[in-house]
Amino acid sequence: MEKLKEVKGGICAAKGFRAAGVGAAIKYEGRNDVALVVADAPCTAAAVFTTNKVAAAPVLYDREAVKGGKVQAILANSGCANACTGAKGLADAKLSALVTAGELGVKPEHVLVASTGVIGRPLPMDRLLAGMKSAAASLGRTPAHALAAEKAIMTTDTRPKEAAFSAKIGGKTVTVGGMAKGSGMIEPNMATMLGFVTTDAAISRAMLKRALSLALAKSFNRVVVDGDESTNDSLFLLASGEAGNAPIVKAGADFDSFLAALEAVCVSLARQMATDGEGATKFVTVTVKGAKSAKDAERAARAIAKSPLAKTSWFGKDPNWGRVLAAVGYSGADVVDLETEVFYDRVWAFRRGTVADAAQLEKLAAVMKKDSFTVTVDLHLGKFEDTIYTCDISLDYVHINADYTT
Amino acid sequence: MEKLKEVKGGICAAKGFRAAGVGAAIKYEGRNDVALVVADAPCTAAAVFTTNKVAAAPVLYDREAVKGGKVQAILANSGCANACTGAKGLADAKLSALVTAGELGVKPEHVLVASTGVIGRPLPMDRLLAGMKSAAASLGRTPAHALAAEKAIMTTDTRPKEAAFSAKIGGKTVTVGGMAKGSGMIEPNMATMLGFVTTDAAISRAMLKRALSLALAKSFNRVVVDGDESTNDSLFLLASGEAGNAPIVKAGADFDSFLAALEAVCVSLARQMATDGEGATKFVTVTVKGAKSAKDAERAARAIAKSPLAKTSWFGKDPNWGRVLAAVGYSGADVVDLETEVFYDRVWAFRRGTVADAAQLEKLAAVMKKDSFTVTVDLHLGKFEDTIYTCDISLDYVHINADYTT
Repeated sequence: MEKLKEVKGGICAAKGFRAAGVGAAIKYEGRNDVALVVADAPCTAAAVFTTNKVAAAPVLYDREAVKGGKVQAILANSGCANACTGAKGLADAKLSALVTAGELGVKPEHVLVASTGVIGRPLPMDRLLAGMKSAAASLGRTPAHALAAEKAIMTTDTRPKEAAFSAKIGGKTVTVGGMAKGSGMIEPNMATMLGFVTTDAAISRAMLKRALSLALAKSFNRVVVDGDESTNDSLFLLASGEAGNAPIVKAGADFDSFLAALEAVCVSLARQMATDGEGATKFVTVTVKGAKSAKDAERAARAIAKSPLAKTSWFGKDPNWGRVLAAVGYSGADVVDLETEVFYDRVWAFRRGTVADAAQLEKLAAVMKKDSFTVTVDLHLGKFEDTIYTCDISLDYVHINADYTT
Repeated sequence: MEKLKEVKGGICAAKGFRAAGVGAAIKYEGRNDVALVVADAPCTAAAVFTTNKVAAAPVLYDREAVKGGKVQAILANSGCANACTGAKGLADAKLSALVTAGELGVKPEHVLVASTGVIGRPLPMDRLLAGMKSAAASLGRTPAHALAAEKAIMTTDTRPKEAAFSAKIGGKTVTVGGMAKGSGMIEPNMATMLGFVTTDAAISRAMLKRALSLALAKSFNRVVVDGDESTNDSLFLLASGEAGNAPIVKAGADFDSFLAALEAVCVSLARQMATDGEGATKFVTVTVKGAKSAKDAERAARAIAKSPLAKTSWFGKDPNWGRVLAAVGYSGADVVDLETEVFYDRVWAFRRGTVADAAQLEKLAAVMKKDSFTVTVDLHLGKFEDTIYTCDISLDYVHINADYTT
């Protein structure tokens, strides 16, 4: 497999895509809140949505729209989720897709819509559509255009999130680039997250869907912030085919190269989301190994990543292996405490019944001061392993979510 | 069924029990940390323990000890959980039961032990046993003795917790009294909680176990603080038989009267635990009704009670029905958002697609200022209902758990 190369340009890095982001005062003045991503021609498309039974209007709309398999444009807004808005919400989603199609000269069934923000308020259609028109007039292919779009989908995010990687496939350079938003309500199955990924790979829809599903499992579905799942999560993948590679229609080296680039983009975006978790001061990679089964490894790692007690201990720079072990204990995974080891980075805190002494705690203290570290639990019961990306729970997490208004 | 009467005296309210609590400097100077509860004669006993696979040494010890069916004394300490302490921890638990039995002149197999506090540290046996002797010398039957014992099992609790109720059974007054500790790591299945309940009812062991199981389901197993479950949870129920009622050996009016008193004690203790949830500023009763099944009602109520986003919104005095609905949506319960109503106390916030307007928000604001309120979700899909007791997540929750030390 060819080596991956990280490249610039985010959602505009692949050939055949333009983007724009503008301010339309959907909720606040003076910030970008309407984004457009537009392909030069209809793209092969795949999408994944929230599993929340209270799904927002744009999700209900897109689930139908994407069945056609082709997408040429995405209209997205922040500031209003268009969720729990009933028939009017669905009509607003449809109308905004229709008007966007007219403005761009593309087919209405090739337009997806995405919203994020407060639940239960109607979309301010006048401002949204005015913003869409202004965005359509400012579309471009530069990194600055990509950045403007990234900024327009941010809610409590503190930073825009983008990633792009290229790979060689049959002598051609194939690029995958993307943008995402999301910093709260993340877990499981990509909660309040919007992720848009574009590629110039030529690939069949079946293989595109398969690649998205595989990449998702290793990235967005492995991020935990607070354990809540939103009504609006959507991940779109559009393939323009402009790279000129021989179309990928089956498993093999070409597919693997494409998948590697897609995974690199998705894992990068997922890690950026955990790093930017609401109020987060620590990015924490939780790895459970030596599990009896894959299921055990996953649930133990998720339990640790979701434990409010473990998360607050990280915020307090405390290498509290007891809370980590307790979380494994109630996760449902098989565990024998006296067979288990707990490490922060490569420094052990608990080793088969032996507890860190003063000298060891000093080494651990150095790890806990870092902005980013790994918590590794080795169960020594089998050979299965899983990794979850997460963050701490800080005072600011509570501030942000207590002050966010209905 | 006779009317219940609330009475004073906590763990000493029922006939035949003495208690004591003393300071033994297990972790801190100047506070009670060793408690004894002693019956005048061996009692019929029932117990329930944590389901965490990482169970503490006292839990491992008690699980065996309680199989005999008789208990006469409980030794409990705070400051050290005696968890993840291996063979030495188990030996320490056994030894402390043995020495306690010798001191009190009771059979070793009639002594239970309980510990709560930091995980992974050995019990300071010298101090624990010195404390036990001092407690044995100060046993008594007054409310002050009960209070001293309650204080000795507190960790991050801010208040001691006791309750007692009496009922008439066949002309005799039967009393049930108890004490509990626990304010973090609570949920599900009574996490870090110690609960000791005594009664003077004459009752068979089979009926005692049945009553405990029924009362547990409506009380401690319906409390959520942060979703973590501890390694040390234990709930003990001791019946002295001194009330002189005709022994309860089967279902019927007598059993129902006893169960009502036991439930009243357990629900009171459970509510005190949620009210005293770490850093809690609000006691919140979450009721889901109109569910398609009992399972749906429970999981929807639990999802709301566990949602960090809902909990932080309550702290922020925000009637955020959107986060409540989103939690129901990912709970797995059947829900149709536009059929659903959400109330804070009796004030609606979301009603089948209609969202609270400014006038309604003003009414809601008055509810959100209260220290205690109810969140009710009516799914309008069936006739099942469940209730979970919980609290908000505050800045102090993070403070307390970030500063608690390994």
